[in-house]
Amino acid sequence: MAPLVSADHPGINELFALLAYGEVAAFYRLTEEAKMAPNLSGRINMAAMAAAEMNHYEVLRDALARRGVDIVPSMTKYASALENYHRLTTPSTWLEALVKTFVGDAMAADFYLEIADVMPAEVADVVRSVLSETGHSQFVVSEVRAAVTGSDRQRHRLALWSRRLLGEAITQAQFVLAEHDELVELVMAGGGLSQMTDFFDRLQNTHNSRMQELGLA
Amino acid sequence: MAPLVSADHPGINELFALLAYGEVAAFYRLTEEAKMAPNLSGRINMAAMAAAEMNHYEVLRDALARRGVDIVPSMTKYASALENYHRLTTPSTWLEALVKTFVGDAMAADFYLEIADVMPAEVADVVRSVLSETGHSQFVVSEVRAAVTGSDRQRHRLALWSRRLLGEAITQAQFVLAEHDELVELVMAGGGLSQMTDFFDRLQNTHNSRMQELGLA
Repeated sequence: MAPLVSADHPGINELFALLAYGEVAAFYRLTEEAKMAPNLSGRINMAAMAAAEMNHYEVLRDALARRGVDIVPSMTKYASALENYHRLTTPSTWLEALVKTFVGDAMAADFYLEIADVMPAEVADVVRSVLSETGHSQFVVSEVRAAVTGSDRQRHRLALWSRRLLGEAITQAQFVLAEHDELVELVMAGGGLSQMTDFFDRLQNTHNSRMQELGLA
Repeated sequence: MAPLVSADHPGINELFALLAYGEVAAFYRLTEEAKMAPNLSGRINMAAMAAAEMNHYEVLRDALARRGVDIVPSMTKYASALENYHRLTTPSTWLEALVKTFVGDAMAADFYLEIADVMPAEVADVVRSVLSETGHSQFVVSEVRAAVTGSDRQRHRLALWSRRLLGEAITQAQFVLAEHDELVELVMAGGGLSQMTDFFDRLQNTHNSRMQELGLA
């Protein structure tokens, strides 16, 4: 498929800056939430995921530098949406932290794959290399499944939690789009409003399949 | 130089386990101490250093796995010494946090280089690849030098702080050696007690040269 967006579209810098702040915010949140881990293995798994976020950050920083953009001032405008998402979804248990990690990682992967398809090759390469290191969160599946197998109450509670995570993510994504015209233009250039609606529908569908994977559906 | 220690020396597993816990402890401490950063750039620099620690951890985990050793149970016995070091050297300002990062990184690098020389090639390769990613802490130099150039009081205070860091590190290293015979045998096999004394002397000397680099000497 030919790229639908040109490499100099101003929305690309904004997209990279948004993703970069997302990586830094995820790094600090994962590390904070890892304190709830019941053992050293849990803390190490969370630390490894957090470290992967910083590796992604460095890919985005280098890509922005090649485009002549200084990452730190560019990304601060996305701080409030991402910090709000994390603040509104602060887990109260280790299982909630695990589900948040898994759902967040999966939503990011969906998002990266969707946008890579319509971008010029050099941009798609950056997006895919950021994506390529996700998947650390598979350790979550066995721990969550074990916890909900014996407890309908736990399953019900975590299913509600995961719906809330998706809802808050969509809410914050809409705030970001409402405030940043270049990003809206980028999404429009990549297929327009109907594609955006389709995207949110697909996000809902893949979210449901992940809930099944975790034993929460 | 021919290796002085054979690849199946039991101290090697212990050494890797000790280093591995050191990486995980450093990850969490750097991330915690990064909260003192006055700005986003500082937080990102600390996060990047923390992420590098987890990359080192993964090298050590894989090396131990190849030797048939499960890393998590092996490393817990080194938790108290490393947690004590960090607890006794909790910084109270961002500048103290920066100096701690730099001194800790430098001491680890010295240590890695010293031991790599006497190890068999496969072990030395692991040690050197863990070392190869250090050096993130150069960002510290310009910030500390700027702070102490205008303030003798700040220079004096940070010089005392850095001596305390070295002292606590040596104290904890001696506790670890006192409790783990395999590690003592490893050091002995690598040249004996006089080499160990030389090592602590060299550590002191390189520490002094680093204090000059930071403008603290």
